[in-house]
Amino acid sequence: MRPWEANIRKVVPYVPGEQPKKERMIKLNTNENPYDPAPAVRRAARSFETGELRLYPDPSAAVLADALAERYGLDSDQVFVGVGSDDVLAMAFLTFFNSEKPILFPDISYSFYSVWADLYRIPYERPALDEEFRIRKEDYYKENGGVIFPNPNAPTSLAMEIGDVEDIIAHNQDVVVIVDEAYIDFGGESALGLLSKYENLLVVQTFSKSRSMAGMRIGYAMGNKTLIKALNDVKYSFNSYTMNQTSLCLGTEAVKAEDYFQEVIGKIKATRERSKERLSRLGFVYPEPSANFIFARHPGADARKLFEALKKEDIYVRYFDAPRIDQYLRITIGTDEQMDILFDFLERYLQR
Amino acid sequence: MRPWEANIRKVVPYVPGEQPKKERMIKLNTNENPYDPAPAVRRAARSFETGELRLYPDPSAAVLADALAERYGLDSDQVFVGVGSDDVLAMAFLTFFNSEKPILFPDISYSFYSVWADLYRIPYERPALDEEFRIRKEDYYKENGGVIFPNPNAPTSLAMEIGDVEDIIAHNQDVVVIVDEAYIDFGGESALGLLSKYENLLVVQTFSKSRSMAGMRIGYAMGNKTLIKALNDVKYSFNSYTMNQTSLCLGTEAVKAEDYFQEVIGKIKATRERSKERLSRLGFVYPEPSANFIFARHPGADARKLFEALKKEDIYVRYFDAPRIDQYLRITIGTDEQMDILFDFLERYLQR
Repeated sequence: MRPWEANIRKVVPYVPGEQPKKERMIKLNTNENPYDPAPAVRRAARSFETGELRLYPDPSAAVLADALAERYGLDSDQVFVGVGSDDVLAMAFLTFFNSEKPILFPDISYSFYSVWADLYRIPYERPALDEEFRIRKEDYYKENGGVIFPNPNAPTSLAMEIGDVEDIIAHNQDVVVIVDEAYIDFGGESALGLLSKYENLLVVQTFSKSRSMAGMRIGYAMGNKTLIKALNDVKYSFNSYTMNQTSLCLGTEAVKAEDYFQEVIGKIKATRERSKERLSRLGFVYPEPSANFIFARHPGADARKLFEALKKEDIYVRYFDAPRIDQYLRITIGTDEQMDILFDFLERYLQR
Repeated sequence: MRPWEANIRKVVPYVPGEQPKKERMIKLNTNENPYDPAPAVRRAARSFETGELRLYPDPSAAVLADALAERYGLDSDQVFVGVGSDDVLAMAFLTFFNSEKPILFPDISYSFYSVWADLYRIPYERPALDEEFRIRKEDYYKENGGVIFPNPNAPTSLAMEIGDVEDIIAHNQDVVVIVDEAYIDFGGESALGLLSKYENLLVVQTFSKSRSMAGMRIGYAMGNKTLIKALNDVKYSFNSYTMNQTSLCLGTEAVKAEDYFQEVIGKIKATRERSKERLSRLGFVYPEPSANFIFARHPGADARKLFEALKKEDIYVRYFDAPRIDQYLRITIGTDEQMDILFDFLERYLQR
């Protein structure tokens, strides 16, 4: 090792998920939306004024925060915008989780929570999901430095009743509670309705799933203005200009396209219902899905082998080689046509 | 204070620089480029395939890294891309400055170095510039945990001789040395030529100044592949998808538009020469500028008062209320027309 290498930060080498680019592939592995962004997004790109790019973007991302505030019936100072919900969540960890006590999040959940906690040296504990992959709310009633959980949860797709979500918040009014609602538009009830009641609640959502804009990197947090100001203060303190002008412009148009948004959600939910039936007929079992994916296993088929067999057909789903979930596949809801190709293969595969 | 506020991170409240939007204003306060991005950037926006936005972007930003590698005669694995050079520099601090020994950077320099060092708990020392605002290379010959300095420096606009840059690197082969070349396209010699000789050298540049794309947020680092891999490993470990698809697409076109790039640089340099002459005739003094700005003071005019007077005319320049530099104004090079309006006002102001 050369001397200058001694001070290089040690991290667990991580390989980003497969993003293969094949023409006929069926990509059901990263919970992307199978439908294009709203037509208004295309029009915005066509008329985007590139001359303005010579100027720095608005660091407060006001145009986009305003549009989101209007959409969700909030004030503009209740919305924080970031480069994907990963950026927003990491910023929230840095801003709100500065206690000596451990923060709490489920053992089976979004994998980056522990990564950000490690990065910022935040102690944490991970209460186990129950046998049916449900979050046990009572596990979150003990003393802690903050709470975060996704609703619906990933990779299970299970939603928690809003009453249970509120119970967790009600039992944790001395810390910040973050509800990560990346998939809420596909099912479950949002905690947004609780914002007026709990000042310590932060709700995080994203454009990557329901708004078909994973490629644009836009996430946002909603909460009382003290929380939002704290997020902005921390952001401004070390990197003021993160949202580029195209994100602000195209993102704003996406928020305004409400009818298109509802149409896409409706189509994906309908395909999810069809997919559930078809999977059940094939003998798969799965927790009741509320997100744009189904977390399924087949009692008669090894998950990893099935995953590999699908890949050979250029059908990509997600497999997690981790305790308790290594016999499951996470299958993103694609178009009806894509799902039919998947099911036709599964049928042949299971008959072998 | 409510209990949940106790764990909110304390930061120095920071107000981003003025980004006023007035129709007739002359904006010479944030070192933006007065000329539009290359015509190819506009064409790329017009034909941008918004349907692709439903997919996550390529986390390795390969298309853009490849274009930069080709432009600078490097291999693709020698280029790291980030959301503006602030993102790249912050990532480099996190990745390379993990020693117990202090890192070194000049006392008068880019203000975010100390911010990132504080954020990541990196000890630092700031050797003072000499009386003429020059970096004293000998100050960097002592034991340290890393070195970073801009060349040309900001806000002085002074470039260091490449021989002196090399002396600093040669004396610091056991740590990573970062040369922050945000303004190098406007003057001074890049340290890129030293990459083949020093494995511990990282050169950081940006699209915000010479490529007229501050609004797009693109920065990049160049170095040997061990350094670049370390940056990517750290990035992937906590936020894989940062560069959105529009940045990758429009940024790539900007890199390829070499003729336009040279034309813009030529115009700004010519305006800088005219501006130097005019400022000198008006009695201003300034360090020899190598960036797209001039750091000037007038022996007979208080800088803050002049700054305020200019603002009343809707002419925005930058004033720093800090020791040693509080009698200077940092004036970005605009178009000839903008500079003439500035100088005409200064002439009237000084005759009062």
